[in-house]
Amino acid sequence: MNLNAQEKKAGFLQRVKAFLSKLKDGVTKRIRNIQKFGKDDPRRIIHSIKVGFSLTLVSMLYYVRPLYNSFGVSGMWAILTVVVVSEFTVGGTLSKGLNRGFATLIAGALGVGAVHLARFCGHKGEPIVLGILVFSLGAAATFSRFFPRIKQRYDYGALIFILTFTMVAVSGYRTDEILVMAYQRISTILIGGTICILVSIFVCPVWAGEDLHKMIANNINKLANYLEGFEGEYFALPEKISKETNSCVREYKSILTSKSTEDTLANLARWEPGHGRFRLRHPWKNYMKIAGLVRQCAFHFEILNGYILSDVKAPEDFISKIQEPCSIMSREAGEALKAIANSIKTMNNDSVCVNAHIENSKKAIENVKFAFKSSSTETEKDLLEFIPGVTMASILVEIVNSVEKISEAVEEFFGLAHFKETLDPKLSPELEQQHHHHLIHRGSVKPVLEGDNEEEYSSSSHVLVIVHDEQPPTTNEKTNLGAEKTRDNVV
Amino acid sequence: MNLNAQEKKAGFLQRVKAFLSKLKDGVTKRIRNIQKFGKDDPRRIIHSIKVGFSLTLVSMLYYVRPLYNSFGVSGMWAILTVVVVSEFTVGGTLSKGLNRGFATLIAGALGVGAVHLARFCGHKGEPIVLGILVFSLGAAATFSRFFPRIKQRYDYGALIFILTFTMVAVSGYRTDEILVMAYQRISTILIGGTICILVSIFVCPVWAGEDLHKMIANNINKLANYLEGFEGEYFALPEKISKETNSCVREYKSILTSKSTEDTLANLARWEPGHGRFRLRHPWKNYMKIAGLVRQCAFHFEILNGYILSDVKAPEDFISKIQEPCSIMSREAGEALKAIANSIKTMNNDSVCVNAHIENSKKAIENVKFAFKSSSTETEKDLLEFIPGVTMASILVEIVNSVEKISEAVEEFFGLAHFKETLDPKLSPELEQQHHHHLIHRGSVKPVLEGDNEEEYSSSSHVLVIVHDEQPPTTNEKTNLGAEKTRDNVV
Repeated sequence: MNLNAQEKKAGFLQRVKAFLSKLKDGVTKRIRNIQKFGKDDPRRIIHSIKVGFSLTLVSMLYYVRPLYNSFGVSGMWAILTVVVVSEFTVGGTLSKGLNRGFATLIAGALGVGAVHLARFCGHKGEPIVLGILVFSLGAAATFSRFFPRIKQRYDYGALIFILTFTMVAVSGYRTDEILVMAYQRISTILIGGTICILVSIFVCPVWAGEDLHKMIANNINKLANYLEGFEGEYFALPEKISKETNSCVREYKSILTSKSTEDTLANLARWEPGHGRFRLRHPWKNYMKIAGLVRQCAFHFEILNGYILSDVKAPEDFISKIQEPCSIMSREAGEALKAIANSIKTMNNDSVCVNAHIENSKKAIENVKFAFKSSSTETEKDLLEFIPGVTMASILVEIVNSVEKISEAVEEFFGLAHFKETLDPKLSPELEQQHHHHLIHRGSVKPVLEGDNEEEYSSSSHVLVIVHDEQPPTTNEKTNLGAEKTRDNVV
Repeated sequence: MNLNAQEKKAGFLQRVKAFLSKLKDGVTKRIRNIQKFGKDDPRRIIHSIKVGFSLTLVSMLYYVRPLYNSFGVSGMWAILTVVVVSEFTVGGTLSKGLNRGFATLIAGALGVGAVHLARFCGHKGEPIVLGILVFSLGAAATFSRFFPRIKQRYDYGALIFILTFTMVAVSGYRTDEILVMAYQRISTILIGGTICILVSIFVCPVWAGEDLHKMIANNINKLANYLEGFEGEYFALPEKISKETNSCVREYKSILTSKSTEDTLANLARWEPGHGRFRLRHPWKNYMKIAGLVRQCAFHFEILNGYILSDVKAPEDFISKIQEPCSIMSREAGEALKAIANSIKTMNNDSVCVNAHIENSKKAIENVKFAFKSSSTETEKDLLEFIPGVTMASILVEIVNSVEKISEAVEEFFGLAHFKETLDPKLSPELEQQHHHHLIHRGSVKPVLEGDNEEEYSSSSHVLVIVHDEQPPTTNEKTNLGAEKTRDNVV
């Protein structure tokens, strides 16, 4: 019995130890995850500190006696404004702040008017008139929020309109100091909003426009990476194919569903003042056009993928015939995309190089067609066996066409963008750095257009540098931008 | 001079008249637009009225003397809660309401604790301790909002946590009645939240889950419509092709970018209690799986489209050979999709019919292959000319595979869903109606599986009914669901 009890005790202690070590492992793992998450995009940490700082700053309305004497409990509206207006991007903060400010002003004025109107109707009629007004304006403003145009830009304003109007109208029934109340509320909201906007713009700003710009360039780079890897994947010996392992090649998949993130960023970017090399009336719409074409190209990859992963391949002699032109096609199209992505990143249009690559891939199309022609006369095999190879090549041709469309859209974009000539290192140090990087490495570029004449090459060589300063890896980028998406609409 | 002045006056009057008539036209046009917008989805109007009603109800806290005496100005928290928690769907309202309630409770308790802790540090230390606490908790909660899991479900809760904690901690510095304040705030928020949730659930509820369910079924129907129209578009005589006119055929395009809407609806659906034939633990995740496969199929359509619109077609004798099997392939795949969509709509799995159609389209694949084989021996034309036709057929084969995958996913879904056997007409009258419709029209179905044996056909005929009670047309549906998307995160 005694021994049994001792055994039980030992067992219990062991279990406690096991539990504690498990707990410790779990906690350290979680802490490491959090650290990694913060390191992936340090702007998240900076943003959190900015919000904490703004909150502390606005608390002064309570801590400092003279401020508290003039605003009293209305100080809480400043706190509410800071919590709710502090968005990750400058565009988000400005859109929220301006919406909140103007909606409060308009609804406050209407509310005061409604209270005065209701007072004409006697003490019994007053709540009825106020009730009808609150009901009808509340319903109308709610309905207006369904309209796409209003929703896109003024959704938050409509919400604050309902809120402020109802509050002013309803409290007006109980207090005579309605004007004092309105003044206090508006001034505290202005204080809170101003703090947020100033902190957002002047302390490590995160510009939605710059994010959008980088995102489009990165997406084009992802397409280029896929095309670069295509040759190795499709024409590899069967035993060498590593299915679904090459994550760099598959990273284009995030483009398939990135539309809503792009739309959100473009919407926010419109609220931002000129910054860095972006002017105030930057053609944000054109980003959407380019993004649409990029996505169209990604759709083609998705179909092409089926043929890469398929075990059914065309006969070897046919494959060996089309291998060279197909490889050139995909490689040159990839190089063209890299050049486009780099043009966008450095904000220097380099259409000469892009067009040279596109021309090369078009020449390769002709060679593929020639290979098809010769196979049909030489071989006696039936059509059925050629299908996978033919379809693959056919989709590749479509991809080249798609790349050409992207290049045209980028060309049009550069025509409208008028990026500021000189870089302002204060506002976008990263872009400046890129530029430097790019200039420094100019000499070490490996020639790619080997087949072309020397002159054409030397005039276009400098855009072939690939600057590896991408955003964080796909998954994190996704979550970060996803955050942006769902955060754009908080009171 | 006088004449000139008269002329001027007449011209001025004319301009005024023109302006007024223009204004009138503009106003009537706008009013008509608004009416149409409301008619497209009357639930929008109902929602607006519901919000107005809730606002009026909550105003009673001010109008009714005994209520005002017990809550005072804290009544405004109830108004704020109503404005902010009233979402279009039940799931949205519940998620907001519960997040707000729990976050307020937790943050309120922590805030009271923080105030008591700070009081130990003397009058000078108090604001410093409070400031540090507000800064660190505010920054930590802001950072937590970046994590995808928290963002997806508890983003609003984190926001309210920051808000409430800061307010309680900061006002605690100035008032000794902090517990009274906390009690008033929490009880008014509970009142406001309860009103919203009750109105949302019991007055014409809009269930996010039902919307998602219908959306998936409609998307599958859109795919079916495309395949139905494919034959007519591709094999039409060149002069008969109407490029980009057949909007019904192109409506699948909305599926390409519908992921974020589906994700949002699925997220909200998880908050909803069992309703209609949906149980509490309905497999909402599986909708995402089906939706992913549907989108994959739409990607194929997007590529196929290029070949429909292209002027380069294969030689006529080749086309005429593959026309029949290709037509059967697309038609049968389309019928399978219609059957699947109908299964989902009526919540009655009819795999027999779906599988029969899929089998038929697979048989057609063999016929296409046979046609390819025979053309390669018969004709002497070169491979190049066949490319467009071969690629088209090859993509069509991929589409049939894709439809089979959708059918398997739907099969799996039905295995998990366990829809309630009896329909509850109160909770989903529309679905009930559909069911009736479906039964009534059973006899009038035109046989489609002509080639099949009588028995198989008669056992599966009833799912071929296409119930035309789709959601509003694409554009409106899009905007409406878009509204849902951006509205899900307001304070």
